[in-house]
Amino acid sequence: MNTTIASLATPEGVGGLAVIRISGPDAYFVAQNLCGKEKIKPRYALYTPLCSPVGLEIDSGVLTFFQAPHSYTGEDVVELSCHGGVIVSTELLEACYSFGCVSAQPGEFTRRAFLNGKMDLCQAEAVADVIMSESSAGKEASYKILSGKFSTLILKLKQSLFVLVSTLEGELDFTEDEITPTPTKEKRALVLNVLSQTKDVLSTYSTGKMLQHGALIALVGKPNVGKSSLLNAILSEERTIVSETPGTTRDAVEVPFLINNFPVRLVDTAGIRRSDDAVEGLGMGFTRQYIENADLVLKVIDLSLPRDAVEKEIKSFNCSKPVIYVLNKSDLLNNGSKKAWGSNGPGVVTTSALRGDGVDDLKEIIYNNLVNHSSLSGALVLTNSRHKLSLDSVANSLERALFIIDSNDFPEILSVELRNAVSHLDEILGLTSVDDILDNIFSKFCIGK
Amino acid sequence: MNTTIASLATPEGVGGLAVIRISGPDAYFVAQNLCGKEKIKPRYALYTPLCSPVGLEIDSGVLTFFQAPHSYTGEDVVELSCHGGVIVSTELLEACYSFGCVSAQPGEFTRRAFLNGKMDLCQAEAVADVIMSESSAGKEASYKILSGKFSTLILKLKQSLFVLVSTLEGELDFTEDEITPTPTKEKRALVLNVLSQTKDVLSTYSTGKMLQHGALIALVGKPNVGKSSLLNAILSEERTIVSETPGTTRDAVEVPFLINNFPVRLVDTAGIRRSDDAVEGLGMGFTRQYIENADLVLKVIDLSLPRDAVEKEIKSFNCSKPVIYVLNKSDLLNNGSKKAWGSNGPGVVTTSALRGDGVDDLKEIIYNNLVNHSSLSGALVLTNSRHKLSLDSVANSLERALFIIDSNDFPEILSVELRNAVSHLDEILGLTSVDDILDNIFSKFCIGK
Repeated sequence: MNTTIASLATPEGVGGLAVIRISGPDAYFVAQNLCGKEKIKPRYALYTPLCSPVGLEIDSGVLTFFQAPHSYTGEDVVELSCHGGVIVSTELLEACYSFGCVSAQPGEFTRRAFLNGKMDLCQAEAVADVIMSESSAGKEASYKILSGKFSTLILKLKQSLFVLVSTLEGELDFTEDEITPTPTKEKRALVLNVLSQTKDVLSTYSTGKMLQHGALIALVGKPNVGKSSLLNAILSEERTIVSETPGTTRDAVEVPFLINNFPVRLVDTAGIRRSDDAVEGLGMGFTRQYIENADLVLKVIDLSLPRDAVEKEIKSFNCSKPVIYVLNKSDLLNNGSKKAWGSNGPGVVTTSALRGDGVDDLKEIIYNNLVNHSSLSGALVLTNSRHKLSLDSVANSLERALFIIDSNDFPEILSVELRNAVSHLDEILGLTSVDDILDNIFSKFCIGK
Repeated sequence: MNTTIASLATPEGVGGLAVIRISGPDAYFVAQNLCGKEKIKPRYALYTPLCSPVGLEIDSGVLTFFQAPHSYTGEDVVELSCHGGVIVSTELLEACYSFGCVSAQPGEFTRRAFLNGKMDLCQAEAVADVIMSESSAGKEASYKILSGKFSTLILKLKQSLFVLVSTLEGELDFTEDEITPTPTKEKRALVLNVLSQTKDVLSTYSTGKMLQHGALIALVGKPNVGKSSLLNAILSEERTIVSETPGTTRDAVEVPFLINNFPVRLVDTAGIRRSDDAVEGLGMGFTRQYIENADLVLKVIDLSLPRDAVEKEIKSFNCSKPVIYVLNKSDLLNNGSKKAWGSNGPGVVTTSALRGDGVDDLKEIIYNNLVNHSSLSGALVLTNSRHKLSLDSVANSLERALFIIDSNDFPEILSVELRNAVSHLDEILGLTSVDDILDNIFSKFCIGK
């Protein structure tokens, strides 16, 4: 980290402002040269002309100097807030390079913040997750990790195990005559407690994954049961996620939007050409594939069919995923039939996509079906697959530790298993990270963060 | 301006940082509520949690308070630098609205800066031009206006005329017996001086327009003379302007790129379907239309044809625009013929698009043909059509004033003409602007500026 890095920190494109961030040992020198001042007060928003090495005034902007270690990266940092658009920021960056800066790699500012101890690795990862989040619920989960709540829990678990390991290893040096070993019951209780907390966090991962990437909902049913109308009825009141990545427009197969601020991706399998044959038996084909990946399946059935036909279709639908049966076209029923269908089962809802009847009920049922409420009530939600893998390993080590305790033998191996668990907790915090793990993590960042 | 406005000041999308700008009487109150602090030091970059009205921590970011009148708008301004991406800035904006802010209209921050006397109208217009600029040369021209150089000139011209008007109007109240009137020669010299400076600035407009929008170059010629190869040969070494607006990719008809940092748009008329019939006689059709709009025409001719055929084609090409004759396919000539074509006329260049021979010469000739060098040597360049129209009116009034002076009569009308000229100069500075002119100007801004 002897280099001084610079890059645009705001998205490219036309906007009122652009911000350039500079970090490293020469940041102050670069700032002095840009604004032509000898002394720059830390944290003071200085409105100043910004000049190129040949003295040409590139722009007037606000220059702020953050003195190490009180900065994002822990190094000297300078931020230039200049006129937006492409040209001004490009010219200012070129000036920074002339003054000795090098172009920052994706995530390099946050990587330096991690390496300088300003945050641990799971917090650093959460920075990218907060930025990339597509829903408030997803952002909230990541922001909890960013602000250190997850790290605190991991440290607490680690501390508990560490105390036990030290005690056990101390006991190994003595005979039972010399000291009283920790009672099995006590060891068991402690390991069980850590294991149970680990499993609690792990249980939030299915929700966390959906929060990050959106829950995948497959809309299936025979032709002409009203799948597309139902999709439109659901969307008409919901805010679609605005995003320019492919597959996020209504024309695409996957339609991403929010239900109660929870991100979902709805797949209308009617849009899948080769699927008609597959709809019936869920045999081969795209529909089946989507159902395999889905978190929830909406099976749409034409309610205007004879009642036994409807019931038969519900019964014959064979699917390993959670299913909500949507009995559509209620507008075609007379009042008598409506009454008969009045009390749906827990996974059945009656709708009229045409009139919008029942659509709000359907959304409520979808939401309740997807969201593990306990996962969202202020508690931590595991969103990152790397953390999940490490916690899985922690749980495995603790399960083995419990087995060893119960078999009341091999105290040395018990200690090894507990140390394994500690080391997997350290992985999460980045205390044992090697360069290629860091490369992998930070390569997913945008430049300028 | 009793309202407090807020908006995203950086481009939408994924990036390391986003900046939200708040301006108006309640900006300080909003900041107090966001960060939960009673006192906020002006211009201090405060790293702080930022909370919603219900106390939920939305993000941690840097809050900077710019106290009126020492701010961009002249009002109290608060800037929030937060994590990038869509969600955080959306949530922070929603919090701002909850605390009483309203969403800013496009250009509203700069409009307020103008109305509060932080800049005049042509400076305000230059803010948008700097942001939208697509080349360094274009940005430099706009930045000169933004930094007040153009305003200074306009004020100087206005001052000269105003002194004369005051003198003339003073003289009207007296008879020639009472005072000695200003000699005709003196009046003439003064008006002529202002007129000549006005015309000097007006003469830069053709360059300025090209700097803003790119010079349009039409590439014409019979089929198979190598127009497309020539286009590729020119582009292969030049930086194309990266932009996501339609018509800026190589597939499009207009290809924008930079020659010596000067923005041009090259139109390969071969890409225009219905033009083949028109190429020969420049009759009806798209080619003709493009030539009419072009700043420069490149007429490509196959040099491997017999010499008299080539000469005939040059002579028969009839076009009202500046033309450069590009004699292509020099690679097909033997050395003897090459020599014969060795000394081209001033508007003739020999190339081999295939080998790249002569392409640099061609670009140099294009550049020299387009750019009025005197317009770029540090002097002001007129880039805005509104300013051009006002200066045209100034020139017209001064021409009439000169006529009146020469006819040595109607001193009252002379004064009226000079006052007209002054008022057109005031238009440029925005001293006589009405709301709908302002609406028109600021509606072209991006939101957040």
